[in-house]
Amino acid sequence: TRRRLFRRIHGLVVAFLIKLWTFFIKAWNIGVNDPRKFIHCLKVGTALSLVSLFYYMRTLYQGVGGNAMWAVMTVVVVFEYSIGATLYKCVNRATGTLLAGSLGFGVHWIAIQCGENIQPIILEISVFLLAAAATFSRFIPTVKARFDYGAMVFILTFCLVSISGYRVDQLFGMAHHRLLTVALGASICIITSMLVCPIWAGQELHTLINRNLEKLSESLDGCVTDFFADKDVINVSNGYPNKMNQAYKCVLNSKGSEESMANFARWEPAHGDFKFRHPWKQYLKVGAAIRSCAYCIETLNGCINSDIRAPETLKKHLKDMCVKLSSYSSNVIKELAIIMKTMTKSPSIHISIGQMNVAVHELQDALKNVPNQVVVQILQASNDGMKGETTNTRPLLEILPLATVASLLVELAARIEVIVKE
Amino acid sequence: TRRRLFRRIHGLVVAFLIKLWTFFIKAWNIGVNDPRKFIHCLKVGTALSLVSLFYYMRTLYQGVGGNAMWAVMTVVVVFEYSIGATLYKCVNRATGTLLAGSLGFGVHWIAIQCGENIQPIILEISVFLLAAAATFSRFIPTVKARFDYGAMVFILTFCLVSISGYRVDQLFGMAHHRLLTVALGASICIITSMLVCPIWAGQELHTLINRNLEKLSESLDGCVTDFFADKDVINVSNGYPNKMNQAYKCVLNSKGSEESMANFARWEPAHGDFKFRHPWKQYLKVGAAIRSCAYCIETLNGCINSDIRAPETLKKHLKDMCVKLSSYSSNVIKELAIIMKTMTKSPSIHISIGQMNVAVHELQDALKNVPNQVVVQILQASNDGMKGETTNTRPLLEILPLATVASLLVELAARIEVIVKE
Repeated sequence: TRRRLFRRIHGLVVAFLIKLWTFFIKAWNIGVNDPRKFIHCLKVGTALSLVSLFYYMRTLYQGVGGNAMWAVMTVVVVFEYSIGATLYKCVNRATGTLLAGSLGFGVHWIAIQCGENIQPIILEISVFLLAAAATFSRFIPTVKARFDYGAMVFILTFCLVSISGYRVDQLFGMAHHRLLTVALGASICIITSMLVCPIWAGQELHTLINRNLEKLSESLDGCVTDFFADKDVINVSNGYPNKMNQAYKCVLNSKGSEESMANFARWEPAHGDFKFRHPWKQYLKVGAAIRSCAYCIETLNGCINSDIRAPETLKKHLKDMCVKLSSYSSNVIKELAIIMKTMTKSPSIHISIGQMNVAVHELQDALKNVPNQVVVQILQASNDGMKGETTNTRPLLEILPLATVASLLVELAARIEVIVKE
Repeated sequence: TRRRLFRRIHGLVVAFLIKLWTFFIKAWNIGVNDPRKFIHCLKVGTALSLVSLFYYMRTLYQGVGGNAMWAVMTVVVVFEYSIGATLYKCVNRATGTLLAGSLGFGVHWIAIQCGENIQPIILEISVFLLAAAATFSRFIPTVKARFDYGAMVFILTFCLVSISGYRVDQLFGMAHHRLLTVALGASICIITSMLVCPIWAGQELHTLINRNLEKLSESLDGCVTDFFADKDVINVSNGYPNKMNQAYKCVLNSKGSEESMANFARWEPAHGDFKFRHPWKQYLKVGAAIRSCAYCIETLNGCINSDIRAPETLKKHLKDMCVKLSSYSSNVIKELAIIMKTMTKSPSIHISIGQMNVAVHELQDALKNVPNQVVVQILQASNDGMKGETTNTRPLLEILPLATVASLLVELAARIEVIVKE
């Protein structure tokens, strides 16, 4: 029995180790795919080591005293992945602390004037009211977007100042020291995040929108090619084209990250090709347009995977036009991506749009000509045929709104260029 | 000039006051629309007042000492809107603090054994390594979902313990006091959030999914009715039906909130009709299915708003079938909503699904019969007619995948019921 027990424990340990190992492999791959994540971790470590130096150096420690704790806390809480997020938190923390600190002093002064008996009551009531008000302000969308963290810091600081004022005598000196250490921690954060491999939220947003555009054109191409490909070919190369088609899926749910990035980007100073007050809101609009294109592709993809298949004759008739239209459309999207990347106006985009519009008209004409050529044939094999026609007109139907959305995208992009150029 | 200056200042002040007033009105309406937000604010105020009592009562203060600050901090940081979120933060804070505290003591002990000169170096290196590792763990999706806050608390506590251990002698006593106060703050949070008007994340998720189902059926009805309505009628009643049609828009982007709610719901104990370990993941699946339906409606809506109009003859021919199908589909969705609400299996859902499938077949048959009746007529007015047919087959094309998705939804819902029933 002893051996059995040993074996069992051994098995459990091995299973656990294997699980741990696969987890590590996964984690490692996350870092390898985006080495900036590793660098970010090292940056956090460096900033914390710098701050903790204040404890070890005797001369530094005497300057700051036991309040050095607040510098450590600030670094841990404020340091974020992108510079915009770090700046947002720093600014929020600073304003929240200052506002709450001065208010706290004011309330404290009033409470002292009222005598010792009423003092705690006044402090209690003020804490209750201001905490409730600040909490409520976090529900307001505009405040939440810009000052959510600030409101929290406000509540925290106000409570600490007004409450500890009741027990601590040297309130002013303490507050002064704390502000100093918080500022110290915040400046260490900003310096390390800006100097070592800076990650700008604006740049990230720019890249994200760009990549989404590329994914969109890829999926569009892939979908239409799939639809018109022979069935056997699809089955053989099942893995690859499907992967291409799924690229749009992450476009569908990118709204949240786009919004938060645009939010952080607003706090960033000029960097790279972006000026301060770069029109980040335009990126959100372009993102929305891209998403509506992705919805169209989603539906189109659903049609491709449906059971009903078009008859080959009709497919062949429309194949050229559809492929042409989709390739022109994806061309437009690709050129949009290039325009976005370089932030310059290119004249060739108008040519591409013209080509796309011509292709739309050609496809419409081709559809008009379908019945004259094929309808008789269809009526003979009416059961199968009509089903076929319904299926076959789909790509056009899906591509039409897609084309309109694409032209909408073009408009938006043009608007951005105008603003960028200014 | 003095008068002019006075007027100008007066104007500015008035404009500012008006802006402030409209902002207040807006904020007030947010609260009026969802009174639980007001209640939440009052809860936060109450919890903070309770905690600050520890400063004012002399007997209580002597028990806790200056560490009462940590209780205040815990309440401010941990108190969240839903119970799930509060519990998530409490558990994370507790485990993070304990883990980091014990590790910090361990490192501290090792550092002391190594002698005074090497001590700060060892502490520095351990801070650097552990901070980097914990920061990296926040990038791993599974860790981020469940222990993001815990990782942050871990870094913070570890730094504080290992660093201040270098200067503070009575480290153990301090840690003991701090843990006590943190536990005190956390328990005050949990008690107030659970006793006064509890807001369960699970319940919220349940309601959200339910409301999304209802919105979906509304928009589906609205869209199809709009499409087949006379143009004049649409123009007259422009405001109302469009509002109905837009209901699905908020379904499109609900993924983020659904996921965070499901995440918080996992931490909640049994409440109401939900047991502990309720299958919250199923809700996410249902949510995804609802969203794919919403994508279809988005495309359908795009078709309705396009410029190309179907000829009236064809419209009339297909109107009945399309309206029938869509009303049956939305019926199924509505019944699904009822099933979700009551969490019981109802036999009538199968009847509704049957009706829907029959309607699908009828519509297909109707489409097959179109050419025999109308094609001749169309060929005479070929230009207009064929364009018309393309437009007119749209609703079917859009509804077909929608119907499949709806039946998929039904499957999912059935699965949920099975799990709920267990």
